[in-house]
Amino acid sequence: MRSIARALYAEVKDLPVISPHGHTDPEWFAANRPFGNPAELLLAPDHYLFRMLYSQGVSLRSLGVGDRSGPSAAEPREAWRLFAANYHLFRGTPSSLWLDYVFVKLFGLEERLAADTADRYFDSISAALARPDFLPRALFERFNIEALATTESPIDELAQHRKIRESGWRGRVITAYRPDPVVDPENEIFPQALRRFGELTGENVQSWKGYLAAHRKRRAVFAAAGATSTDHGHPTPRTADLTPMEAERLFAKVAIGKATADEAELFRAQMLTEMARMSLEDGLVMQIHPGSHRNHNRQLHEEYGPDKGSDIPRAVDFVSSLKPLLDRFGNEARLTVILFTLDETTYSRELAPLAGHYPVLKLGPAWWFHDSPQGLMRFREQTTETAGFYNTVGFNDDTRAFLSIPARHDVARRVDCSYLARLVAEHRLDEDEARTVAVDLAYRLPKRAYRL
Amino acid sequence: MRSIARALYAEVKDLPVISPHGHTDPEWFAANRPFGNPAELLLAPDHYLFRMLYSQGVSLRSLGVGDRSGPSAAEPREAWRLFAANYHLFRGTPSSLWLDYVFVKLFGLEERLAADTADRYFDSISAALARPDFLPRALFERFNIEALATTESPIDELAQHRKIRESGWRGRVITAYRPDPVVDPENEIFPQALRRFGELTGENVQSWKGYLAAHRKRRAVFAAAGATSTDHGHPTPRTADLTPMEAERLFAKVAIGKATADEAELFRAQMLTEMARMSLEDGLVMQIHPGSHRNHNRQLHEEYGPDKGSDIPRAVDFVSSLKPLLDRFGNEARLTVILFTLDETTYSRELAPLAGHYPVLKLGPAWWFHDSPQGLMRFREQTTETAGFYNTVGFNDDTRAFLSIPARHDVARRVDCSYLARLVAEHRLDEDEARTVAVDLAYRLPKRAYRL
Amino acid sequence: MRSIARALYAEVKDLPVISPHGHTDPEWFAANRPFGNPAELLLAPDHYLFRMLYSQGVSLRSLGVGDRSGPSAAEPREAWRLFAANYHLFRGTPSSLWLDYVFVKLFGLEERLAADTADRYFDSISAALARPDFLPRALFERFNIEALATTESPIDELAQHRKIRESGWRGRVITAYRPDPVVDPENEIFPQALRRFGELTGENVQSWKGYLAAHRKRRAVFAAAGATSTDHGHPTPRTADLTPMEAERLFAKVAIGKATADEAELFRAQMLTEMARMSLEDGLVMQIHPGSHRNHNRQLHEEYGPDKGSDIPRAVDFVSSLKPLLDRFGNEARLTVILFTLDETTYSRELAPLAGHYPVLKLGPAWWFHDSPQGLMRFREQTTETAGFYNTVGFNDDTRAFLSIPARHDVARRVDCSYLARLVAEHRLDEDEARTVAVDLAYRLPKRAYRL
Repeated sequence: MRSIARALYAEVKDLPVISPHGHTDPEWFAANRPFGNPAELLLAPDHYLFRMLYSQGVSLRSLGVGDRSGPSAAEPREAWRLFAANYHLFRGTPSSLWLDYVFVKLFGLEERLAADTADRYFDSISAALARPDFLPRALFERFNIEALATTESPIDELAQHRKIRESGWRGRVITAYRPDPVVDPENEIFPQALRRFGELTGENVQSWKGYLAAHRKRRAVFAAAGATSTDHGHPTPRTADLTPMEAERLFAKVAIGKATADEAELFRAQMLTEMARMSLEDGLVMQIHPGSHRNHNRQLHEEYGPDKGSDIPRAVDFVSSLKPLLDRFGNEARLTVILFTLDETTYSRELAPLAGHYPVLKLGPAWWFHDSPQGLMRFREQTTETAGFYNTVGFNDDTRAFLSIPARHDVARRVDCSYLARLVAEHRLDEDEARTVAVDLAYRLPKRAYRL
Repeated sequence: MRSIARALYAEVKDLPVISPHGHTDPEWFAANRPFGNPAELLLAPDHYLFRMLYSQGVSLRSLGVGDRSGPSAAEPREAWRLFAANYHLFRGTPSSLWLDYVFVKLFGLEERLAADTADRYFDSISAALARPDFLPRALFERFNIEALATTESPIDELAQHRKIRESGWRGRVITAYRPDPVVDPENEIFPQALRRFGELTGENVQSWKGYLAAHRKRRAVFAAAGATSTDHGHPTPRTADLTPMEAERLFAKVAIGKATADEAELFRAQMLTEMARMSLEDGLVMQIHPGSHRNHNRQLHEEYGPDKGSDIPRAVDFVSSLKPLLDRFGNEARLTVILFTLDETTYSRELAPLAGHYPVLKLGPAWWFHDSPQGLMRFREQTTETAGFYNTVGFNDDTRAFLSIPARHDVARRVDCSYLARLVAEHRLDEDEARTVAVDLAYRLPKRAYRL
Repeated sequence: MRSIARALYAEVKDLPVISPHGHTDPEWFAANRPFGNPAELLLAPDHYLFRMLYSQGVSLRSLGVGDRSGPSAAEPREAWRLFAANYHLFRGTPSSLWLDYVFVKLFGLEERLAADTADRYFDSISAALARPDFLPRALFERFNIEALATTESPIDELAQHRKIRESGWRGRVITAYRPDPVVDPENEIFPQALRRFGELTGENVQSWKGYLAAHRKRRAVFAAAGATSTDHGHPTPRTADLTPMEAERLFAKVAIGKATADEAELFRAQMLTEMARMSLEDGLVMQIHPGSHRNHNRQLHEEYGPDKGSDIPRAVDFVSSLKPLLDRFGNEARLTVILFTLDETTYSRELAPLAGHYPVLKLGPAWWFHDSPQGLMRFREQTTETAGFYNTVGFNDDTRAFLSIPARHDVARRVDCSYLARLVAEHRLDEDEARTVAVDLAYRLPKRAYRL
């Protein structure tokens, strides 16, 4: 089994990286300036890291994480030492796998990160980052990335993306349309975002028709900037299919900030169906990432703002939630809706049966907390027998941590090869088929599913 | 571990097949006419196959699946070619395991099914099916089936079963009492079914007493035709224990088609308890198969009718749902209730603890989407430590695809032997005990649980 | 992988046992009298055993289990024979693992327990139990137990614990504060327990202030008797954070027995927050064990009383349930709240993300039905990648069966070593790190988490 897995891995390990969904900063590739120090590059933006440190009593401030009042005053070297001294907390987690991969492959650091090697790490990495072969574009090329998508809000003017395109650099960095700030009435920036949405598009976004027209305009602008997908991070997968009149009435309350919690949920639900309708027109692939209770830690959210490691998954029900959207568009061959989940119980119970039937549905890979060796394996084990491989979209990484991209794809390729090797060893798949599937999962499926 | 597993498998691989729950057509064994062509036999009736093809954009019509307006006009050979060309979709699924077993063992076809071998397959299989050793009864005997149950509705007159018995053929094909059409007020044929139920029994099925008496009569007829079990495919496992007066009042609304959705659910719930009460009288084993959202694809259901691959599992709660029935009959030594689930989260949380305590409860095997190598393994892994082996009923196949029966039992036997071998290798079970358990799971437990 | 696991296990197998949570009887260690016969010692108090026998139609009475009317009249030898004749029911369960460990290691019985060896077992074990080296304190020392906690209700006067301390024996047997009888308005002994609570403390427990003061007093008494923790066995993990006035009003209804089911639930929820507040003051570690539907078998409960093997787990939601408590105290470095679950779906979805973020939260080990080889493994597999090892508290056994303690810790140590060996084999952890983690899980983490 090991030797079959190794042979399969040899076929895929050097394939280009397709990264159609992520949260890297396009400014890196636009400006192509050197990254800063190790703490700023590797630690402060990675909520996987500081959430774990925080759980063991380390304050976010001391790690260089800024709060609502401004950036942290922590010395980067001190923050790095604190991280290094607590590196044992990451034993058995994917974070240590990814970081060790980066340390060894990118920086040639083979000793273990710990209190007594912290400074050596800090100095070596700092020195490397100053070199031209560590500039963002150089790394992008070294990482063999064929396409990388960032995600932007509808009110982002895509200036960085324009700059990338105009620079003549050949790296394919595209955007994705993530309308949450203008779709979620409970988002703290919703009122300003909606106003800006109107200004940018010249539409009257206080009217339902104008609001929808504004979406169409911005989607077109995003598509022109290379976007092939939209992304929707809703609390639940609920969808709705209201009559135009009901939708208009609901929006009237939303637009003036008078929607109740139930109405806000209904509005988000209706907007998934509206986005599906627009995707049928403009061909953008739709991604739904539901089921995270955002900013669960009230106090931390008040002090530090969102995305500080306290988003907690909860149980979701795709079967009844998606029905209104599927009743409307479930059999449309031209539409692709990619589903992600943080609730692994839905893999075998709901998602595989849904994707194994509906033409519009495909399954995104194990996501966020589950983008890990055992998480990725559970995904294959619990979806393949019902949905097969071809109703999944291969791997994508969903990361803000640019340097971890090759490590993440490497882990996913190893896990998939290991899964395929088991099928071969148990006579459930021939070896030549396994080779084809390995390449499909690593390369061809994400490219096709995201229309790249 | 492999060698232990092989030794165990050698003990069980040739044991007779006990198939106490399934959906084969008794007419096959009554008439004993040759099966038609490969598409008609293997493809069109198998919703595992066409649901997957449909998910990738293949129309049901082109596969030979008829719709509400009549049979499909597709040429069987064309349908077969379409299936063959898409056979890669089934990689890693149990469907390909079962089919390849049939192709090799039954038809001697060792090449892989694909676009370029489609015609050779079609011709070989067609030729074989015309031979006397491929007649339904000959296959039944070749498959070493000791007992096979079909499922019929209370309004089925069991003519095929009578014909089988009167033919003098020794194959044991029995029926099972599946009253869903006259128990589920939301079933689309409920009104006609209820009327026919009254005609067949001579009872006034508009009265609660008459309705119950009609069940008793039909159960007796089914038992006389060999039935040893009933089967209940409810949306949820909810049960109720109403007073006779409440039940009567509820039925009055159900009988005239005026029950709300809540009342329909309550009526199904009450009927499980009524069926348990009758089982105590007549000894029929009760099977409950809950948790499928039937006909989830609205459009497909409207065009093609039920059972077209769009039944989707959803989360169920056995703990509170079964309590009314268990409060009434949970400690009755003479009653056996076999539970199945599509929600695997209930294995370790609810089903194993319930079956490991209540005398009336037994666990049916991994079912439907989970009747697969990894699904069957998860069932053992997640139930054995709490419920043991002897609160499970061994394997049964639940298939409409007659030819797949030996393959399905073979997969289940291999998985159970592999599970037992692991226990032996980890010193959790002695090898002689594992041998006994292997035979129990494959043969003795289903025979005993279903009172065959 | 096996050899790595063996090497890791060699490091931990002889470490002292830390057993900070259990239900052994302190009277054993206070009186240090010989245990009775095998049936009385091993069978009658072990609900894992008689629940399984009961599920297969064996009456509790015949096993020596007393009912509400008094002790069972069953002859111990007859009860033991019945158990022995049905010992095959435990194949594949942890019960047989634990018992076989006890039979071999403690009593030198190497033949398998069965009908024909029942008497030999009964006689050998009876003879051994009469010897001084089988007295409770001698076993405690032989088991290498460094600390053992029992659990007592606030109205227990801790006489046995006083006797142990005053005896001069050096064994560390401590108590834990389990206030359920005075916290759960639906507990059948709540009214008497509340009255006694008032008498013991001299507080007016009909007033909210007096009731809280009574808790503070009893907690102080428990802490003085060595307690380092509290334990809360609620039906759900729900917490609340009412205003003092709301709490007072709610308690007024609870105190006079007028609380509805919803109010009882709200009161339990509020009391978890009150207990957390007191833990911040007095330093007792808080354990929450939610999600069991107690006494699910109505008839058995009426006849035999509680704890008779019919407690059934159900689905729980930690994410919203714990929020009120976490909003109030989630970031307090001085507080430790240890969470247990019977709903394994919460491991990866809720518990690991919560414990991997909140400073106050730690995860207790696989519990009750899941304290088994595969249950323990699933816990590691589904929590480690998100929460790491250091947000878990190592193993604790939760048993009433004193003799099984070494066996249970041995199983847990083997499973953890096997999990760690896999990480090493897959290059996800270095071997020296695995050695450290193995000792942490077996010994250092429980000692630290429970402040022993």
